[in-house]
Amino acid sequence: MDFRIEKDTMGEVKVPVNAYYGAQTQRSIENFKIARDINLMPKEIIRAFAYLKKAAAITNYKAKVLPRNKYLLISKVCDEILEGKLDNEFPLVVWQTGSGTQSNMNVNEVIANRAHVLNGGKLTDKEKVLHPNDDVNKSQSSNDTFPTAMHIAAYKILVEVTIPGIEKLRNTLKKKSKQYMKVVKIGRTHFMDATPLTLGQELSGYVSQLDHGLKAIKNTLPHLSELALGGTAVGTGINTPEGYAENVAAEIAKLTKLPFKTAENKFEALAAHDAIVEAHGALKTVAVSLMKIANDIRMLASGPRSGIGEIFIPDNEPGSSIMPGKVNPTQCEALTMIAAQVLGNDVAINVGGATGHFELNVFKPMMIYNFLHSAKLIGEGCVSFNDKCAVGIAPIEANIKKHLDNSLMLVTALNTKIGYYKAAEIAQKAHKEGTTLKEMAVKLGYLTAEEFDKWVDPAKMVGKLS
Amino acid sequence: MDFRIEKDTMGEVKVPVNAYYGAQTQRSIENFKIARDINLMPKEIIRAFAYLKKAAAITNYKAKVLPRNKYLLISKVCDEILEGKLDNEFPLVVWQTGSGTQSNMNVNEVIANRAHVLNGGKLTDKEKVLHPNDDVNKSQSSNDTFPTAMHIAAYKILVEVTIPGIEKLRNTLKKKSKQYMKVVKIGRTHFMDATPLTLGQELSGYVSQLDHGLKAIKNTLPHLSELALGGTAVGTGINTPEGYAENVAAEIAKLTKLPFKTAENKFEALAAHDAIVEAHGALKTVAVSLMKIANDIRMLASGPRSGIGEIFIPDNEPGSSIMPGKVNPTQCEALTMIAAQVLGNDVAINVGGATGHFELNVFKPMMIYNFLHSAKLIGEGCVSFNDKCAVGIAPIEANIKKHLDNSLMLVTALNTKIGYYKAAEIAQKAHKEGTTLKEMAVKLGYLTAEEFDKWVDPAKMVGKLS
Amino acid sequence: MDFRIEKDTMGEVKVPVNAYYGAQTQRSIENFKIARDINLMPKEIIRAFAYLKKAAAITNYKAKVLPRNKYLLISKVCDEILEGKLDNEFPLVVWQTGSGTQSNMNVNEVIANRAHVLNGGKLTDKEKVLHPNDDVNKSQSSNDTFPTAMHIAAYKILVEVTIPGIEKLRNTLKKKSKQYMKVVKIGRTHFMDATPLTLGQELSGYVSQLDHGLKAIKNTLPHLSELALGGTAVGTGINTPEGYAENVAAEIAKLTKLPFKTAENKFEALAAHDAIVEAHGALKTVAVSLMKIANDIRMLASGPRSGIGEIFIPDNEPGSSIMPGKVNPTQCEALTMIAAQVLGNDVAINVGGATGHFELNVFKPMMIYNFLHSAKLIGEGCVSFNDKCAVGIAPIEANIKKHLDNSLMLVTALNTKIGYYKAAEIAQKAHKEGTTLKEMAVKLGYLTAEEFDKWVDPAKMVGKLS
Amino acid sequence: MDFRIEKDTMGEVKVPVNAYYGAQTQRSIENFKIARDINLMPKEIIRAFAYLKKAAAITNYKAKVLPRNKYLLISKVCDEILEGKLDNEFPLVVWQTGSGTQSNMNVNEVIANRAHVLNGGKLTDKEKVLHPNDDVNKSQSSNDTFPTAMHIAAYKILVEVTIPGIEKLRNTLKKKSKQYMKVVKIGRTHFMDATPLTLGQELSGYVSQLDHGLKAIKNTLPHLSELALGGTAVGTGINTPEGYAENVAAEIAKLTKLPFKTAENKFEALAAHDAIVEAHGALKTVAVSLMKIANDIRMLASGPRSGIGEIFIPDNEPGSSIMPGKVNPTQCEALTMIAAQVLGNDVAINVGGATGHFELNVFKPMMIYNFLHSAKLIGEGCVSFNDKCAVGIAPIEANIKKHLDNSLMLVTALNTKIGYYKAAEIAQKAHKEGTTLKEMAVKLGYLTAEEFDKWVDPAKMVGKLS
Repeated sequence: MDFRIEKDTMGEVKVPVNAYYGAQTQRSIENFKIARDINLMPKEIIRAFAYLKKAAAITNYKAKVLPRNKYLLISKVCDEILEGKLDNEFPLVVWQTGSGTQSNMNVNEVIANRAHVLNGGKLTDKEKVLHPNDDVNKSQSSNDTFPTAMHIAAYKILVEVTIPGIEKLRNTLKKKSKQYMKVVKIGRTHFMDATPLTLGQELSGYVSQLDHGLKAIKNTLPHLSELALGGTAVGTGINTPEGYAENVAAEIAKLTKLPFKTAENKFEALAAHDAIVEAHGALKTVAVSLMKIANDIRMLASGPRSGIGEIFIPDNEPGSSIMPGKVNPTQCEALTMIAAQVLGNDVAINVGGATGHFELNVFKPMMIYNFLHSAKLIGEGCVSFNDKCAVGIAPIEANIKKHLDNSLMLVTALNTKIGYYKAAEIAQKAHKEGTTLKEMAVKLGYLTAEEFDKWVDPAKMVGKLS
Repeated sequence: MDFRIEKDTMGEVKVPVNAYYGAQTQRSIENFKIARDINLMPKEIIRAFAYLKKAAAITNYKAKVLPRNKYLLISKVCDEILEGKLDNEFPLVVWQTGSGTQSNMNVNEVIANRAHVLNGGKLTDKEKVLHPNDDVNKSQSSNDTFPTAMHIAAYKILVEVTIPGIEKLRNTLKKKSKQYMKVVKIGRTHFMDATPLTLGQELSGYVSQLDHGLKAIKNTLPHLSELALGGTAVGTGINTPEGYAENVAAEIAKLTKLPFKTAENKFEALAAHDAIVEAHGALKTVAVSLMKIANDIRMLASGPRSGIGEIFIPDNEPGSSIMPGKVNPTQCEALTMIAAQVLGNDVAINVGGATGHFELNVFKPMMIYNFLHSAKLIGEGCVSFNDKCAVGIAPIEANIKKHLDNSLMLVTALNTKIGYYKAAEIAQKAHKEGTTLKEMAVKLGYLTAEEFDKWVDPAKMVGKLS
Repeated sequence: MDFRIEKDTMGEVKVPVNAYYGAQTQRSIENFKIARDINLMPKEIIRAFAYLKKAAAITNYKAKVLPRNKYLLISKVCDEILEGKLDNEFPLVVWQTGSGTQSNMNVNEVIANRAHVLNGGKLTDKEKVLHPNDDVNKSQSSNDTFPTAMHIAAYKILVEVTIPGIEKLRNTLKKKSKQYMKVVKIGRTHFMDATPLTLGQELSGYVSQLDHGLKAIKNTLPHLSELALGGTAVGTGINTPEGYAENVAAEIAKLTKLPFKTAENKFEALAAHDAIVEAHGALKTVAVSLMKIANDIRMLASGPRSGIGEIFIPDNEPGSSIMPGKVNPTQCEALTMIAAQVLGNDVAINVGGATGHFELNVFKPMMIYNFLHSAKLIGEGCVSFNDKCAVGIAPIEANIKKHLDNSLMLVTALNTKIGYYKAAEIAQKAHKEGTTLKEMAVKLGYLTAEEFDKWVDPAKMVGKLS
Repeated sequence: MDFRIEKDTMGEVKVPVNAYYGAQTQRSIENFKIARDINLMPKEIIRAFAYLKKAAAITNYKAKVLPRNKYLLISKVCDEILEGKLDNEFPLVVWQTGSGTQSNMNVNEVIANRAHVLNGGKLTDKEKVLHPNDDVNKSQSSNDTFPTAMHIAAYKILVEVTIPGIEKLRNTLKKKSKQYMKVVKIGRTHFMDATPLTLGQELSGYVSQLDHGLKAIKNTLPHLSELALGGTAVGTGINTPEGYAENVAAEIAKLTKLPFKTAENKFEALAAHDAIVEAHGALKTVAVSLMKIANDIRMLASGPRSGIGEIFIPDNEPGSSIMPGKVNPTQCEALTMIAAQVLGNDVAINVGGATGHFELNVFKPMMIYNFLHSAKLIGEGCVSFNDKCAVGIAPIEANIKKHLDNSLMLVTALNTKIGYYKAAEIAQKAHKEGTTLKEMAVKLGYLTAEEFDKWVDPAKMVGKLS
């Protein structure tokens, strides 16, 4: 590969001749050879940086600390980054400095060098139109830009991917719940036969879980909307012009069309990432819900002949390389694996969040990597589960009826008529002798066949249907 | 020990002659010999059951399905339970059936038997004035009472112990923050010297963390305010009178003076405990904050002679059995241990919450055990930390001044005057040669001594003080 | 309450007049009002301290740094502690100093004061026969005694409670596996019908899991056998006589009849508790196994009429307060709750283990609290599950036969005869038309009825039975 | 894009015209649009599949169930996969079916199609020389191949990346420990000044942690060496020739030069992944160690002027985008972020491992994804930390001396001379009055200046140096 020489405050570094990035990016490449094949800094963070660099440039320009041509050049490159044109210029990994300084400098360098080229210069020119620190990074520090990028990326993925994904699944389940609201089936508690409910009611529980989960996520958005930018090195805002923090947040809000605002307390915003911890706490709650829902659905769909078999889910692919004709609840499997992953990511985030020191938390890249991972997995996982599984849920009426008719737990309806103890006697003896409840009830003389038919009616045991 | 014979639907059981509990409690004692020395069902759950049993009795009475005398007797025993008079009658452990049925029956049996004695009967009477299932448990199931008790206990401990405890600490830190708002000190990022801030600013970050944490907890209260009661066996409300769910929730709200309401969806309320998962997600966020805060404080207080030593914290006890005169940041240690515990409890709760099946989650006792543990630890831990540590925080001015004066990072103020690169050169050379910034700045000819004094003033580097 | 005055290096303290503990214990009671109702320092740690104090006394005596009468008095009180006679004298909680210094001093004080009384003195005497620091704690520091107590307690509970509990369950499952080795049943993969295996084979998988789990636990014992004692304050062994570390470990080994030895590196032994982290890593592996096993068993036992229903497990108690005659897999529920708890405890231990600083880890009480909790839960949980559930496992032959005969996955046996694709066609069409495999195979003309009967024989599809 | 038509048992599918993969791979691409940008099935798994497919082919050939030409063709393609020539042919993500069936079929399809081309055929030929199920997958099931690939990949990465990485760091620390064995410095417990030790002793604790960690990892290799292959669909080995399981494991051992053997119990090997859980338990133990070590090192290196500052670590890059001349402990930050990640990955693995059902665990791809992630992060992270940080550790003698000379805890040496209480008095008063220990000791009259100098000698307080 051909190289050119770049410099930073520590000296000269060889970088690939055509790379837009510079000395500090190259140092990071060489210093952090860790999981380079799988853990590049998430592109969502790079895009978030583009928003904030653009917003900082215009704010600096308006504050008269950056000339117009520099602001325009910075903006132009930021737009290119947002369009994905410079994706290959961000080769750093998550496992770098914990402040993300190197990724901040990567962005600064790419903007400075690309701007110079856009401005008609050459990468090998000694003087460039923009200085990565003094111009692109003006009124900023890694310590406030990286957490700002974290919040922008986190907020955006939640509202663009996660929440819509969950809502899509929620809406399908709601529709199915209404559609099957009158399909009476056996209930199961402790995995054992219990009193009946309807399939629609069962599904409504999942809808309610997701509704609460959505609310939980939304409750955490205000904390995420607080931006660190303007705190600079340690939260005091050193080297920023008057009003900068408020103004730059307003610019970011305008660019992203999201309600970002400056963090009331910048010391927290640099030294802790409780907003990430809190918001991921909501994501893990949703993961817990999804595990329950997907597990239920695969168990309800189990069989086809020797399982529970009360619902049908779509056959999407051959399920086995050895068992011909086998079909499996693969979407449930992907979703439950996702749930497990999110529970793990939560712990990584907690440990990182808890281990900040003094004025800076230095687990930033790891924390946001896990956050974005979870948010994407839940959002895309819900869409996949929705499109390839939930939309096709349908009752298997024959099995539902068979299970319902056999159930001994219908006896519960007799509690208020003959008392719990006699009802228990009927159920226990019917179980032991393998008869129906009705036969045993009459045999024991606790009620007549007519009374039984009147009192023990599954359709009346499911309450009001909404 | 002397015994009497009690019966349930499975037959006869010997119970201690004077115990108010009955057959099913005794079966559970014998069937679950697990961690009996340390893991009794939390008393907060027993008390919560007393509220709900009392509320159910009055609701049943008003609905005309329970006679007045029975309602009054049930109420009376519930009051005794709430007063702590019957604490020894609840000998069951957490590690029982996952629905908590045995603890529900424990409460039912104690109420029935104690009521019988209050009514003038004897424990050995064959017929009792109340039946544990048909009367005390009327219009209820373990499946809706236990989760109701969970929410009552969780809500109560949050508002009575956890939130006030955090607020107490928050208020002390706020006061200290104001008090020391003008004490300029060195900042530290990456554990390395950075630009200055004030001690008050540093403390304000902790205040902000706790403020956000309090908000996060409060955001989860509405979900916890939803009660399962009225769902009975599987969520359909079988065997409940008209309007029961709404009415019993209103009674519980009245008794506890907390804004409980009936859960909109009872199927979720029995089959999932996402409200517990969600609320504990807020608790783990606070744990993360407390870990950061307590860690910082012990590091700031480290020394007395060979550490950071910038703040004083109270000496509470001799710190070492071998090193005479040693004093340690023991409250920080207790609080960080608590934080670690809460992070662990969170995972236990997640696994339990994710593993419900069909109409019932059967990790109930484990989940609420961990929740109450965390809520108590945080609440009482914050009070202890507050009273024995935070109230005594004071700056050690001599060390603060020494650290500040030595710092090379004051050079940051020169960025906007001479540019980042020249500023870096000053700092690097001063570091290498062991001189002051000023000496080096002048030596390098980048500015005059007068300019240095004017531009590099720590007090001006901390921004606006609020 | 009546008090007497005790003193430590910080001054005078009032303690209950008859308490054997002294000033430092009392300070801790007052300084740490955290979860006092539920989190006393585990008694296993107190007992472990008794072993080590006795061993230290004899070692000091043999090294001629402690007179014989003092050694004998210390030994005598330690024996009383081991007999449980002084249990009420240890009122401290887990949430104290992270070095456990206060519990070490609690033990020192109780030994000194009780010895004085045994020696004919009075608690109010100004001079006592033993000094808690200079005599009882001689050649020791909290920093090496507490981790030594941790290892003694951890090792003991593993070999006395955990391993025997797992082995008991393992042996029962092994017996059941042999007993039902020829009961051919349907297999299930992805929760869907698959090719057959025998019930004995299915159970043998659980046995193998537990065998590996036992091996995993045993692999961690050597690290736990290393004792910190002799490292004193920071690992250098200051204030210990020649040969002390090796000798005191040998005494502990003799007293406990367990292969303890002095840690090769005392700096690790004080500053890190990787042995606890590692050993709990084995416990969490077993927890994972138990979750799988208990889940399978409750699903196999599900029904009685509308579930899988292939095995019977004992009916131990009425399962529902509302559904008469219901019986639930309650032992499975306790065991899976335990598994969840252990997974949570693991994280608490990890966070504590990761957060030591310099020469001392100060998460000691929290770490050992969680370790002992898990070890006890697994050990006692396995015994409970064994005695009340596993011993009663029996096949329900009728259901097993029905499920097996219906299965479409028997078609797999035809792969090697007619190829995967034709076999798949048979299974898919039989499923669609609701017929048997045999009917469809013959109808499609891929083989004759005779060939089918010969080739598709479930009993031949389960491999060699061991 | 141009397509060709491929078929599986469910019908026709369009695949890219030049792709070697076939219908089932394409279905998976379409069915699982989840995190495609970041979560491809790890290449280590694909390579492991190549080993096992090659081994299966030769075993089948030797068992006379596969013709020689087919065996040779399969081998040839497997070699190409191992050389990385076909990397682009494996486009599936982790979030697919939990058995990994689709990746198994991906491999089967690529081998079959590539072999056909190598054999002179065209991808569009209707008949191919190899059938993906009947030939390439012969004597196999996804259910035994995927876990076999998991164990091969896990074992290989541990011995090729993880263990060597840890050893490299361990050896550097060992060397540094010897080098600085006589550098006496202050010890710190509870983050507070304590009795002295040497820098070499301090480092030896880290060495000991890593030595134990390496042993812990190695303890888990035997379980990982057990291969599921030969169990096929449910563990019974249906459709395998006599002796297949043992023979194929021997072939894999030969190809990989690692001591693989057939799992004694195939039912465990398919239904549970306790070996992965157990081995990752060792990895998380190492993560805990690394967190401690990297934290200590950054704190010891903190400053340069206002921290602890007792050791020097290399300056690798400019540390701040705003603070000129700042250098940070970035390798410590990467390593502690890695540790946090591994602790999170551990939980994901635990949840997956615990949630298998009946004859198959269907969290396989998620589990191995996390395992390989952790193993790579630890291995590569240790190398990075070693090369860029640990090799450069050196004492900063001036600071070390200053801290040591000031320390009040040297008083501990007087315990055995004048007793703990008088020693405490000296330390406390010296602290209060800001004097030296010696001055105060003499002033209080407890010993002479000569005695002090003789008894309080830091160099004698560090024990025997090894």
